[in-house]
Amino acid sequence: MSSEAEKSALLTRRGLILILSSPSGAGKTSISHSVLREENAERAASIHLSVSVTTRARRPSEVEGVHYHFLSKRQFESMRDQDELLEWAEVHGNYYGTPREPVEAALTAGQDVLFDIDWQGTRQVLDKMRPDTVAVFILPPSAAEQRARLERRAEDDSAVIARRMANARAENEHWSEYDYVLINADLNESVDKVRAILNAERCRPARLVNLPEFIETLDRDLAAQAR
Amino acid sequence: MSSEAEKSALLTRRGLILILSSPSGAGKTSISHSVLREENAERAASIHLSVSVTTRARRPSEVEGVHYHFLSKRQFESMRDQDELLEWAEVHGNYYGTPREPVEAALTAGQDVLFDIDWQGTRQVLDKMRPDTVAVFILPPSAAEQRARLERRAEDDSAVIARRMANARAENEHWSEYDYVLINADLNESVDKVRAILNAERCRPARLVNLPEFIETLDRDLAAQAR
Repeated sequence: MSSEAEKSALLTRRGLILILSSPSGAGKTSISHSVLREENAERAASIHLSVSVTTRARRPSEVEGVHYHFLSKRQFESMRDQDELLEWAEVHGNYYGTPREPVEAALTAGQDVLFDIDWQGTRQVLDKMRPDTVAVFILPPSAAEQRARLERRAEDDSAVIARRMANARAENEHWSEYDYVLINADLNESVDKVRAILNAERCRPARLVNLPEFIETLDRDLAAQAR
Repeated sequence: MSSEAEKSALLTRRGLILILSSPSGAGKTSISHSVLREENAERAASIHLSVSVTTRARRPSEVEGVHYHFLSKRQFESMRDQDELLEWAEVHGNYYGTPREPVEAALTAGQDVLFDIDWQGTRQVLDKMRPDTVAVFILPPSAAEQRARLERRAEDDSAVIARRMANARAENEHWSEYDYVLINADLNESVDKVRAILNAERCRPARLVNLPEFIETLDRDLAAQAR
């Protein structure tokens, strides 16, 4: 029997929510993409990025259900008011949120879900889903490096960069609310650390849903062998 | 600047105590040796096995200070009574224990220490050093495999094997007191999991002793750049 088959025969695991938060320019998006790619290369469908709902207009490059689920304001408010969102925010007059149902379905199926959200969203998710949630805060190695990364993004003009730098200070205050903190000095090292966190957290006894039954069987067999 | 140099310049880390516990025949000793070898190959002196003190007579193959520190009963009791042991036990009339001082020195130097102890020792260490301690429980994939592993050890006769199998049941009851649990179906996978746990736990904010100062500097530099 292959080791993968043995493992799946032995233990059933509940999935987890992996939150990555960081100020702009810390390199979170690159880390997220690499973690998703490497984890799924090792085992298909093991982790996916949560798809948010939003009331903002769809851009030509965006695909419904891939980048966002695009909703009317009324649809969004209905979800929010029925507690169908794990977290939500209003940004420049548009709503953004994370629907609860697909996340619950993934966790039950033993799949992990990656959330790319800020400290305010993290706080809401921790309030609702603390036992299922692992929150990681990513810092840039220095302010100069952070600015350089923001400037390398062709899309942002200097006013946007200045605002993002100012927001970074507000975001940084909240590192102590996170389970893990890392400084992204090197992309590969940071990806390895996030994957280590993910693989460690998969070994938490509370996520191994049939562990009590496994131990019971082991003990019964040990007792039988002792006779 | 190399990434290793950058990291050491950016953050100072307090070491951690990594406890591995398991019933006999779960493969803990093989896992410990591989974790130590692989971690130290990647970065010298990053983690070492704690050397216990004991009042048992030294065997010809054993070296003082490597396998154990060999003490008189009076010396041991003096250490124990002055709270110089993180954990201790009496087994078949001999004392065994873990001295506190070298562990404290290692943690302060940013080095991790591996403890190979049972649930009773683990409970004592958690009482004294909870914030510094990460406790991992290792289970065999099945009772049959556990017995086979014990029988492959030439050193044990069948009475010893039977006793170890019985003890395993008592040990197994305590899995829920551990931070992480893994089933050792495959040595390489188990080593990878323990290393993932170690590398994840190194990212806990409470162990990153100068993180508050790092954030302060980052914020000051961000403020300066915003002007």
